[in-house]
Amino acid sequence: MELGLVGLGKMGGNMRERIRRAGHTVIGYDRNADLADVHSLEELVGKLSAPRVVWVMVPAGEATQATVDRLGELLEPGDVVVDGGNSRWTDDEKHAEELAAKGIGFVDCGVSGGVHGLANGYALMYGGDEENVAKVRPVLDALKPEGDFGSVHAGKVGAGHFSKMVHNGIEYAMMQAYAEGWELLEKVDSVENVREIFRSWQEGTVIRSWLLDLAVNALDDDEHLDGLRGYAQDSGEGRWTVEAAIDNAVPLPAITASLFARFASRQDDSPQMKMIAALRNQFGGHAVEKKP
Amino acid sequence: MELGLVGLGKMGGNMRERIRRAGHTVIGYDRNADLADVHSLEELVGKLSAPRVVWVMVPAGEATQATVDRLGELLEPGDVVVDGGNSRWTDDEKHAEELAAKGIGFVDCGVSGGVHGLANGYALMYGGDEENVAKVRPVLDALKPEGDFGSVHAGKVGAGHFSKMVHNGIEYAMMQAYAEGWELLEKVDSVENVREIFRSWQEGTVIRSWLLDLAVNALDDDEHLDGLRGYAQDSGEGRWTVEAAIDNAVPLPAITASLFARFASRQDDSPQMKMIAALRNQFGGHAVEKKP
Amino acid sequence: MELGLVGLGKMGGNMRERIRRAGHTVIGYDRNADLADVHSLEELVGKLSAPRVVWVMVPAGEATQATVDRLGELLEPGDVVVDGGNSRWTDDEKHAEELAAKGIGFVDCGVSGGVHGLANGYALMYGGDEENVAKVRPVLDALKPEGDFGSVHAGKVGAGHFSKMVHNGIEYAMMQAYAEGWELLEKVDSVENVREIFRSWQEGTVIRSWLLDLAVNALDDDEHLDGLRGYAQDSGEGRWTVEAAIDNAVPLPAITASLFARFASRQDDSPQMKMIAALRNQFGGHAVEKKP
Amino acid sequence: MELGLVGLGKMGGNMRERIRRAGHTVIGYDRNADLADVHSLEELVGKLSAPRVVWVMVPAGEATQATVDRLGELLEPGDVVVDGGNSRWTDDEKHAEELAAKGIGFVDCGVSGGVHGLANGYALMYGGDEENVAKVRPVLDALKPEGDFGSVHAGKVGAGHFSKMVHNGIEYAMMQAYAEGWELLEKVDSVENVREIFRSWQEGTVIRSWLLDLAVNALDDDEHLDGLRGYAQDSGEGRWTVEAAIDNAVPLPAITASLFARFASRQDDSPQMKMIAALRNQFGGHAVEKKP
Repeated sequence: MELGLVGLGKMGGNMRERIRRAGHTVIGYDRNADLADVHSLEELVGKLSAPRVVWVMVPAGEATQATVDRLGELLEPGDVVVDGGNSRWTDDEKHAEELAAKGIGFVDCGVSGGVHGLANGYALMYGGDEENVAKVRPVLDALKPEGDFGSVHAGKVGAGHFSKMVHNGIEYAMMQAYAEGWELLEKVDSVENVREIFRSWQEGTVIRSWLLDLAVNALDDDEHLDGLRGYAQDSGEGRWTVEAAIDNAVPLPAITASLFARFASRQDDSPQMKMIAALRNQFGGHAVEKKP
Repeated sequence: MELGLVGLGKMGGNMRERIRRAGHTVIGYDRNADLADVHSLEELVGKLSAPRVVWVMVPAGEATQATVDRLGELLEPGDVVVDGGNSRWTDDEKHAEELAAKGIGFVDCGVSGGVHGLANGYALMYGGDEENVAKVRPVLDALKPEGDFGSVHAGKVGAGHFSKMVHNGIEYAMMQAYAEGWELLEKVDSVENVREIFRSWQEGTVIRSWLLDLAVNALDDDEHLDGLRGYAQDSGEGRWTVEAAIDNAVPLPAITASLFARFASRQDDSPQMKMIAALRNQFGGHAVEKKP
Repeated sequence: MELGLVGLGKMGGNMRERIRRAGHTVIGYDRNADLADVHSLEELVGKLSAPRVVWVMVPAGEATQATVDRLGELLEPGDVVVDGGNSRWTDDEKHAEELAAKGIGFVDCGVSGGVHGLANGYALMYGGDEENVAKVRPVLDALKPEGDFGSVHAGKVGAGHFSKMVHNGIEYAMMQAYAEGWELLEKVDSVENVREIFRSWQEGTVIRSWLLDLAVNALDDDEHLDGLRGYAQDSGEGRWTVEAAIDNAVPLPAITASLFARFASRQDDSPQMKMIAALRNQFGGHAVEKKP
Repeated sequence: MELGLVGLGKMGGNMRERIRRAGHTVIGYDRNADLADVHSLEELVGKLSAPRVVWVMVPAGEATQATVDRLGELLEPGDVVVDGGNSRWTDDEKHAEELAAKGIGFVDCGVSGGVHGLANGYALMYGGDEENVAKVRPVLDALKPEGDFGSVHAGKVGAGHFSKMVHNGIEYAMMQAYAEGWELLEKVDSVENVREIFRSWQEGTVIRSWLLDLAVNALDDDEHLDGLRGYAQDSGEGRWTVEAAIDNAVPLPAITASLFARFASRQDDSPQMKMIAALRNQFGGHAVEKKP
């Protein structure tokens, strides 16, 4: 089939390559002309035969909104827009409604896979009407990993991004689990081979996983991670997971703890701990550490 | 080699079988005569040639202490006791000292694998002097999974159980991670195929793992887990992990949250939430739910 | 001065009374004609002299929006609307802009005090331009507690509700603190007089507070809270506090734990704990509790 | 009455003064001869008339154990030892048994009050048999605050220290509550007068407390706490509270979060966050911050 692909960055570029390898035609557009096959969205749409499928792979928020808006002007009834970016699920219903008013279909698709996706395939979670999903099916099949897994029609519009968001929330807590265990092992004198303990866990244990394999890779690079700062960014999806939990009155203590640990890691000095120190000093005469 | 094995329950019985399949001689003792090869620890020790290795696989605490005490009386200098049970790491140094006073060696060994261990091997984490570990090596090789992983000399006496304990702590938080994500997905209307979402994650995602595979198995048995109560026991090792963290001033927010969630799951009614309800009623005139 | 007061429920009704006792004229409107002094917002506005001040005390969200919209039509340049309800701070800037387009001022005011406010005064946190605040000042002075405290100009528009929201977030964690301590004391056999321990803490301790006094009152009513269910509602403000923290990358572990504990208290059975039980059963053959 | 008081540090010295002001005779011993009234425990015991009461106010652990041991040798049946230090409640039963074997009574007493105790009195929580408590009563009455509160017979031996420990656990979470709220208010631009917001809360709010008063004092000293480092010590009692919760399967999410926040505040760099950064880099090619 033919696919229009908007956004050819680290993810989009690899996805274009994987879809082409599967024998499909991909016409890619990017603001960076060095990456692009065409010079404009208009040209991209003009090169596709109806019913057109255009996959949007640009940053969530304003960039995605602008692209969806422009595609709404360029596409025709029966065409389908896929948002494969990291949009918040609450944006999906809005986009679906805006496009539906013009007869254009919408599918949201959460994509996981990172730098390994080109070779191994991308995990796909998508939401939308079966009719629209069917038009995208060949591309979904090309992107997903081989085998029986890796691709799911999660539900209605929004369910794809919602599932991907929850995937990332789970990822936060799994990473935190290994990180907490690693720190505790590193702290205790009688434990002498933490890297080899992690390596040994790769088979026969309850906690074997791909993330564990990556942890071993990281420790092989730098046994005690001495070269790194304990500083972790977070993407929007961890935050959105907690917000969705709050909206739905679902307690997420481990995922939220993992998010907060990242927030704290980025503070040079903790304001709340200044207040704790100040209070301890007030009532107990406890010494405080003054800044130099 | 010859091994004395004390404790032939679910774990010990399967371990005897796996060691025998590897060609070693195992003499097993259990209080349950139907399971045992010999009628007493004395008989067991009498059947082994020096240097003897006796692997203890009985409940942590009193039963293990009594067995170690009795073996201290029966064994001779140069023999080795292995504690493969779920002992707290703080017991190991004590046992090692008691036995060392009699010239008997000690190795602690955390064993993971559960019901799948007989077929797939057991993950082993052991601690102790190289000299003592060497005497147990053939049995360790028989028990571990095939391949390069699954077995590690973690450090000094105690490091084996400590590593296994941390493994279980990580396991708590990983299970909690999937459980939180599953609850959130089940709660939201637009998401229609939660089981299939979990299944799809088994390939190509960051969160693929053996625990995820088990979660899919569980959902295949009972798609919404309707037949289960939300009630989870905890073993000692999750608690000890948090206590070790406190001893070492290591923050473990996700692992601890996972432990507390299990505690709460076993309360018919939450005393602390009664106090919250009572306070809300006091200051705001908020309605409280009275017991029938 | 003259005040128009919209919303005469539990809070609004008592506030009208307290403002009148201070010698001001209050014209109250409520959809419930039995409570109201006038029959419509139109009539209310008509009875006030310019510059008019209308205090809105209706449920946050749609009801407040509708009232602000209608007042925008009825009031004149130089008048001021005060939103004293529990609006989310993000609504305030929107309301301020809508009214400013018509020359009408806006002040947001968080109000604390509950059922004790009529007698003791209400704590007030307000945001807005000094010019608009000045027009409301006599009413603010009438509502606040006597003495030097209880009233603050917190900052720009939105800062009032934001401060009140944070107040409530702190309240969640303080309540949780006492509740956790109470449960632990009640659980331990050697501790025999938990109510009297709480009572003793009312003087000379670091943790003495008004909430502690309320806890003692509650325990005097029902020593072990046997008559209550461990079931706690939450208002929007606890949730918004956590959302504001996420927006600002501020870790709030204690406040969030308090919110999640309330969520969990309202679940008859915990879905996430079903998943934990299912996983334990899968890997360890651990027994699960089936539903009857 | 006559009291022997062992340990005349910051707490013990002030307590001697307060008891003397109430008209009792206090004979104080301290290793620091400048502070002491006598030169040895032997001399101290020799100066008291039977039945003797000796109050021990030395550091928990070895120092208290050594003092109790020595008093066990010096005192006679019918005498009473009071441990007013910060001993772990689990030590109390042990001390009581050791002394009971010699006919000597034991009372454990948790003491709160800090630097304000001399003037305002100390909150006292004590455990032990009524017979022994009665012998100490006049001193308990002298130490406690005036009024109806501040002193409680909490239960059996150990209940005093247990109650004090829980008091401190609650204190941790209350301090954390204010600290989290303060940080969030400081972070948001529209909020301009955080110190004045805190000050206003001192009357008419749900969260007014002595700790809040102290927070205002601290902010009056240094409005944004710019001079302090966000670095907070913890005493043993917060840790013991969490350990007691674990022993009793009581979930304490807010108190534990408060303890962990202090642990994290003392780390120059977070090892667990290094692992998070390393994993993010492994799977997503996310940039890591290298150490300079």
